[in-house]
Amino acid sequence: MTTEAAYLKQYDASRFPAPLVTVDSVLFTLHQQALCVLLVERAQPPQEGRWGLPGGFIDMAHDDSTRATALRKLTEKTGISPAWLEQLDTFSGPDRDPRGWSLTVAWFALIAWADCQPRITSVSDARWVPVGALGDYPLAFDHGEIVAAALRRLRQKTMYSLLPVYCLPDTFTHGQLQEATEIVLGQPIQRKSLIRRFEASGMFEETGESLATGARKARLWRRKPGVDIHLFSRNLLAD
Amino acid sequence: MTTEAAYLKQYDASRFPAPLVTVDSVLFTLHQQALCVLLVERAQPPQEGRWGLPGGFIDMAHDDSTRATALRKLTEKTGISPAWLEQLDTFSGPDRDPRGWSLTVAWFALIAWADCQPRITSVSDARWVPVGALGDYPLAFDHGEIVAAALRRLRQKTMYSLLPVYCLPDTFTHGQLQEATEIVLGQPIQRKSLIRRFEASGMFEETGESLATGARKARLWRRKPGVDIHLFSRNLLAD
Repeated sequence: MTTEAAYLKQYDASRFPAPLVTVDSVLFTLHQQALCVLLVERAQPPQEGRWGLPGGFIDMAHDDSTRATALRKLTEKTGISPAWLEQLDTFSGPDRDPRGWSLTVAWFALIAWADCQPRITSVSDARWVPVGALGDYPLAFDHGEIVAAALRRLRQKTMYSLLPVYCLPDTFTHGQLQEATEIVLGQPIQRKSLIRRFEASGMFEETGESLATGARKARLWRRKPGVDIHLFSRNLLAD
Repeated sequence: MTTEAAYLKQYDASRFPAPLVTVDSVLFTLHQQALCVLLVERAQPPQEGRWGLPGGFIDMAHDDSTRATALRKLTEKTGISPAWLEQLDTFSGPDRDPRGWSLTVAWFALIAWADCQPRITSVSDARWVPVGALGDYPLAFDHGEIVAAALRRLRQKTMYSLLPVYCLPDTFTHGQLQEATEIVLGQPIQRKSLIRRFEASGMFEETGESLATGARKARLWRRKPGVDIHLFSRNLLAD
């Protein structure tokens, strides 16, 4: 028997009492001019009746990572698998869950309303809540803190990327991108800066079609296939 | 007994078999014109004799978060507590540790060589390894992947911040900042862009002293007290 096999045989898991581990996701979308987050009413204790993030325990027999757990839970609630899903942070400590020292791996994503809306209406315990109305929803555990952290990160990334593209339809105008970006940020932006970034990115192509808005017609754009949107700006080298 | 108390009494931890949870840190510094990472030779199985990141299990009786675990382990190895320590990511899965489904919360930090050097030499199993020499060190588990992810993140953040300030002495010149930034990035940068960012940040003040380098004298700067260095650039709003 090798040293390692001997060690594993002796390995006593109780020497390393494990924290309670969960995976939670903050899923954002844009609906009716508002940035919304998906909440689920807790059906079981602890904190039954409070609102929480979609998530749960790792299924170690089937999940090959916490990303897989996050995607499985989101698919259960919304029927879709987000094209972009990113790890936010890990929240941990002795007091955040009454069951003991716990740790949750938090993920966040931004999806287009059109992709999830038809499916989610059939899940009675899940609700899209505008971020401005979160005060009306008593949140379980430290999920309020997690939502706030996800919102900060989403806004930071929006500052230096074109991330709001993920909540637009497959084809969109510059005006729609500007509107989505301003709703995510919660403040107006310089349109010419946004368009300069958009054009410099090389990530988009014209569809050849246009959208009539009032008397004006605006060109429609789409993402080039296989392109990752949330790239960092590289101004220190590119200046 | 309340519903929640009744639930907690019935709560059977074995229904949710917990993954093995560890905390690991990627600690960077600059030494002899090279970006270096701290590695520790593993004294015990599994993977005894391989090199790994400083880290270990959560001490649930004392650590109030995974940050506390990371700081405790780094202090044990280096004698210092980094001024800036940020969560990198969580790495998880059934195959990364022979003991079973495991998850590590990875943190990363950048420190000044002057702060840690005197203490670390007394820890025989710890070594600063230039990132270019990592190929000579067989790394345990997925620690190679974790180091690579930390290096990418460090470089990304350096692109849009003044993070390399953390590996400089308390007082430094523009030239020293440029050199540190170029070593972290592994490529030359535009000096005037860096100085523009430095001045626009409002985070630094002149000491009134200067450093003679050859025939020239360069002004010395220091961080204003209490200022957080790794701020994002906000060009979308500021343009």
